[in-house]
Amino acid sequence: MDEHTAKAFDADLKDISGKIKAMAELIEQQITGASEVLVSGDTVLARQIIAADMQADALQREIEEKAVITIARRQPVAVDLREIVGALRIANDLERIGDLTQNVAKRAMLSTEEFRGTNGVTLRLQHMAQLVLGQLQAVIESYEGRDVEAAVEVWRKDQEVDALHNSLFRELLTYMMENARNITFCTHMLFCAKNIERMGDHATNIAETVYYMVKGTSLPGERPKADVTSLGTLPPI
Amino acid sequence: MDEHTAKAFDADLKDISGKIKAMAELIEQQITGASEVLVSGDTVLARQIIAADMQADALQREIEEKAVITIARRQPVAVDLREIVGALRIANDLERIGDLTQNVAKRAMLSTEEFRGTNGVTLRLQHMAQLVLGQLQAVIESYEGRDVEAAVEVWRKDQEVDALHNSLFRELLTYMMENARNITFCTHMLFCAKNIERMGDHATNIAETVYYMVKGTSLPGERPKADVTSLGTLPPI
Repeated sequence: MDEHTAKAFDADLKDISGKIKAMAELIEQQITGASEVLVSGDTVLARQIIAADMQADALQREIEEKAVITIARRQPVAVDLREIVGALRIANDLERIGDLTQNVAKRAMLSTEEFRGTNGVTLRLQHMAQLVLGQLQAVIESYEGRDVEAAVEVWRKDQEVDALHNSLFRELLTYMMENARNITFCTHMLFCAKNIERMGDHATNIAETVYYMVKGTSLPGERPKADVTSLGTLPPI
Repeated sequence: MDEHTAKAFDADLKDISGKIKAMAELIEQQITGASEVLVSGDTVLARQIIAADMQADALQREIEEKAVITIARRQPVAVDLREIVGALRIANDLERIGDLTQNVAKRAMLSTEEFRGTNGVTLRLQHMAQLVLGQLQAVIESYEGRDVEAAVEVWRKDQEVDALHNSLFRELLTYMMENARNITFCTHMLFCAKNIERMGDHATNIAETVYYMVKGTSLPGERPKADVTSLGTLPPI
């Protein structure tokens, strides 16, 4: 890249990073909102969250367009190219977290007051969502600082989210077995728990992307995996 | 594009289309395999499906790399650029379908023989998976022929998958309420049904991508949506 192209590329990159930051802030609000709906059942807030998902989709498209134009115009290589591809991947993960918050909001607005208070399940789901929110904030910070160590830390901590999910999963099954009247509510909560666990997986994906952007290689070693609910009592394979 | 670049671009595009085709074939096999495990509980086949997901991930990365290099080298615009961006999006949707088949295989291998035959639930799940497989094959064909009408047809038919999912969802809840011993099995089947329904959504996404590639605009009108399970008795919003 000549000096002119390098300067223009830096400006493009700043623009893309700015859009990622804006998108992350929107998604963080969506997680906070959805976790509030879990506890309150607030249908007005739920509908706001559902509507705001369109903004996240639009931001992802904008990032994609800007990234593609930048690749074509500046023909970046090595770390510069990884910056752009990384932004594409991060926007994709953020959009998927957005979809999941929307689904949590939809299911949470259905939970009737009678069940919402039962056994503190929704409070524990909210706690899990807050943990995931912290993970997302930390990984976006690691993206902004191109901080590999902080990214690896987020990657490792996903096990805590998985552990919470496993324990909630088993607990919800117990409530369903105890009383058939709990089944519909607990089924929605099972899906909410799974959705929140998957938000954590996407934060972990972003951590892997930050590592790749900076280092140019994949994160070494197996992804730590503590979610065994889809494998019942079998060890993860 | 000059004549030389145009020829080189055509070769790049052919390469990318070929990789998409190969990836789609792999994913189609994965769906067939997972739907067999649902009915048979075959753990050997299940483990093969789980292992093969790595191949799908590798193919997606290959397509991504090739697409990015092509954008940088050939600087395509208009329909040529949409071809490349479209391939990126399709590879992403195929990879997500792959993840979902893997999850279905994991859950299906847990279903004990006692429950597998119950009420024909697994057969109906298999039927739903076959419907989705047909949708995927049709949309990949529409991609190969750049056939917008065929793509729109797939997009419309997703309602059938959603309708099957809704009916299975309600049925599974009933079995859970009838007998607490069904709960663990039915919970896994609820997630399998949801996963298969989401595979259908990704086929629909691919239909939208084919439309965008050819026409350069988004598919007009609301996406037909018949899945109301996450909204309980509320109308879809």
